[in-house]
Amino acid sequence: MTAWTISPSDIMLNRFSDNDTICAIATPHGMGAISVVRISGPASFSIVSRLFIQNGNPFDIEKLVSHKAYYGHIVENGDLIDEVLVTFFRAPHSFTGEDTAEISIHGSVFVQQKLLQVLIAHGCRMAEAGEFTRRSFINRKFDLAQAEAIADLISSESEAAHRIAINQLKGGFSKELQIMRSKLLEITSLMELELDFAEEDVEFADRSELKSLLQETLSHVNKLKDSFRLGNAIKNGIPVAIVGQTNTGKSTLLNALLGEDRAIVSDIAGTTRDTIEETLNINGILYRFIDTAGLRKTDEIIEKEGIERSYKKIKESSIVIGVLDATKGYESIISSVQEIVSKVDLQYQQLVLCINKVDTISDQGEVLLGKLRLDLNNDDIWVICLSAKHGFGLPDLYNALKFSQPIVDSDATLITNVRHYEALTHASESLKQVKEELEKNIPIDLISQNLRDALFYLGTITGEITTDEVLGTIFSRFCIGK
Amino acid sequence: MTAWTISPSDIMLNRFSDNDTICAIATPHGMGAISVVRISGPASFSIVSRLFIQNGNPFDIEKLVSHKAYYGHIVENGDLIDEVLVTFFRAPHSFTGEDTAEISIHGSVFVQQKLLQVLIAHGCRMAEAGEFTRRSFINRKFDLAQAEAIADLISSESEAAHRIAINQLKGGFSKELQIMRSKLLEITSLMELELDFAEEDVEFADRSELKSLLQETLSHVNKLKDSFRLGNAIKNGIPVAIVGQTNTGKSTLLNALLGEDRAIVSDIAGTTRDTIEETLNINGILYRFIDTAGLRKTDEIIEKEGIERSYKKIKESSIVIGVLDATKGYESIISSVQEIVSKVDLQYQQLVLCINKVDTISDQGEVLLGKLRLDLNNDDIWVICLSAKHGFGLPDLYNALKFSQPIVDSDATLITNVRHYEALTHASESLKQVKEELEKNIPIDLISQNLRDALFYLGTITGEITTDEVLGTIFSRFCIGK
Repeated sequence: MTAWTISPSDIMLNRFSDNDTICAIATPHGMGAISVVRISGPASFSIVSRLFIQNGNPFDIEKLVSHKAYYGHIVENGDLIDEVLVTFFRAPHSFTGEDTAEISIHGSVFVQQKLLQVLIAHGCRMAEAGEFTRRSFINRKFDLAQAEAIADLISSESEAAHRIAINQLKGGFSKELQIMRSKLLEITSLMELELDFAEEDVEFADRSELKSLLQETLSHVNKLKDSFRLGNAIKNGIPVAIVGQTNTGKSTLLNALLGEDRAIVSDIAGTTRDTIEETLNINGILYRFIDTAGLRKTDEIIEKEGIERSYKKIKESSIVIGVLDATKGYESIISSVQEIVSKVDLQYQQLVLCINKVDTISDQGEVLLGKLRLDLNNDDIWVICLSAKHGFGLPDLYNALKFSQPIVDSDATLITNVRHYEALTHASESLKQVKEELEKNIPIDLISQNLRDALFYLGTITGEITTDEVLGTIFSRFCIGK
Repeated sequence: MTAWTISPSDIMLNRFSDNDTICAIATPHGMGAISVVRISGPASFSIVSRLFIQNGNPFDIEKLVSHKAYYGHIVENGDLIDEVLVTFFRAPHSFTGEDTAEISIHGSVFVQQKLLQVLIAHGCRMAEAGEFTRRSFINRKFDLAQAEAIADLISSESEAAHRIAINQLKGGFSKELQIMRSKLLEITSLMELELDFAEEDVEFADRSELKSLLQETLSHVNKLKDSFRLGNAIKNGIPVAIVGQTNTGKSTLLNALLGEDRAIVSDIAGTTRDTIEETLNINGILYRFIDTAGLRKTDEIIEKEGIERSYKKIKESSIVIGVLDATKGYESIISSVQEIVSKVDLQYQQLVLCINKVDTISDQGEVLLGKLRLDLNNDDIWVICLSAKHGFGLPDLYNALKFSQPIVDSDATLITNVRHYEALTHASESLKQVKEELEKNIPIDLISQNLRDALFYLGTITGEITTDEVLGTIFSRFCIGK
């Protein structure tokens, strides 16, 4: 361990002591068949066994078997609170790594509150948000990146987001970080070796091993960093802007798109988003549709602002669906297309042009389609004929969206967390500087600071290096009971 | 067992087979730290063990230990769905009495849905509402009254409602029913004995034993039946009507009352009521405040209707709070009081008169109070001076409400369920007829039908006698997963 690495257990984490015995409802809020109250900390066995009665006798803590579900009653001062199942988990074989008890109670809000009150009266305190997971981290049950994966897992809304979180939870990301860190440590020792011989003014060989190791690590860091765009899109949904002039049928198209799959969307209830946007799950990938104002030339300030916002939303999207009105004739269509194309970066964004309302122009749809394809002369742009109103052509649009789906290698590590992205960006910058400095033959002792920085940033991701503040921020985003 | 008693296991319960293996989320809906998925039925062990991987190896069902929590992963076709804790409960030592597995998963809505999908793909079917509890009933883990107590327990909103449900769940009510039924069976055998000797035309002794047993049982049935008024008030809240002329400060008083305790009210979130009314928990008893229109003499039809509704609500209340305006002078007050008193049945209802706005009449409040008490000359009516606006005198009102609290003997059985109330009412009527018939010396064989009816009605409460339809109705009120 190098001097600037501190152990997670060294850290005073919060104003409450980590020796407290904490309790919280671990299951979602509200009424249900059962709820689970989780208790963790040194006194959890003694507190629970004091309240737990089996066949009229107090539970014998001496005979406690870990991981066994006991049926009995929670009784306080002779009052029966509930019939329960209690499972004890003896340290370190528990989620937190501490002595833990889980009490399965009837899912009554009253009973939940009552049990918490009784536990608190007997020496527990209410857990802070994320405190169970934080204790797991302190007790090295997993690292910080894995702890964050739990939060991601809980809020995952699609197959793909779920897979990324599960992979991160399994430690896939952590393993990659470990590899990078050990490479950097190898570089450090190579440099320190050179430093040791510095007096002799001998420069080591040709530094080629150093440079190749460095390039390898930098590429790895950059690959992870760059995966954030995709990872974030998968976690939060791929942003899709639906644009076009007013009255081209943008809303009808959105409704038609959602209509077919709304059940899937509403299945995933109880999840919250910062802004309410329509989402659609296609093949396990979440799409997030962004409402835009109609595009049309105007001098009115208010309308101009709306259109400016639409342009901004186009820029933020990965996929742009341009809706064109077949009834307006080819001149209008091509002018609208030119405007949309001018706002789309075809290198990074997928453009899908939909000639809408083709049901009203008999067989002229195919003619418009052919003409437009010819004029565009760009195979990267999808052109589709459809009628949003009658559902005609929608399968083509689904295909276009599916085609734009990122191909996610199920084993590939994708970054989904802004904190990780920032750390990787810093590490990448530091390594780039090391590389430049090496090329400029700057003395090793001046280079090593940037190397230390890179190590530091990578260390913050798994929490090998961390501060009270960082931990506080991370865990406060968890729910209570987690 | 008599001929008209059927065993619960004889009954075909629903369109689905009771041999199916069923699954459902048992914890409340939404996101949380963990959720629990419950699987019950003959195939539950084999289905779960097929999906459950420990340290990379499939779970060995041969080594399965009941009531032990196993850590591992749920994996389908190589895809990791979640890391989980699985506890198996071998029949009959489970909630349902069948082989049951409980899978503790991360509380992600996506993971919950995904796991259910996988379980269904492997041979489970989604549980119907209340189906787990119904299976417990079929497997004689408890009777129908106890099953209903679980639903009451889950929805209990106050200490007192919780206590009643817990007592019923423990089987207190069932035991009383058993006592009554065995008394009735004793009466039946006494009568049958008489019937056997009927040919000899000998009337048994003086039937006094028969009559005294019958009276005892009838009293018991009536006591339980009459406890419904209190039990129902405790379960759903004691109905309190706040009445008075317009602008006497009724709404201000309600807000002042709720303001002090609103936190307690909102603590019990997630519960639903048919109509939205304000409730307040005082000393563990729930009060349900009923909004009434102001009382004043009018000829307008619409206003008359509103006032009629107020009178109806007064009639439905256990407590009536009459609000009087101190600024209007004694003549107005006494006339308002007379109107209120005329609508209240002081034998069954508690009346609390509040002289409001006493802050505006300097020290005249006490004078009004004394005068009113003198004129009323009734110690059963509470009279209080207060200022709802300034919170002055509110403690007196709380005291009056507390004083009106039913004294609930914690061991007394209270009926809270309309179905039970109706069955007891029918039983009571049948027994009353038996009593009359006995007194009229009607032949025993004609009496016995009413006795059978009484036995039948009591039997329906615990489910010794039941029909598919009754069970369907009862369990459909449960949530899925219970």
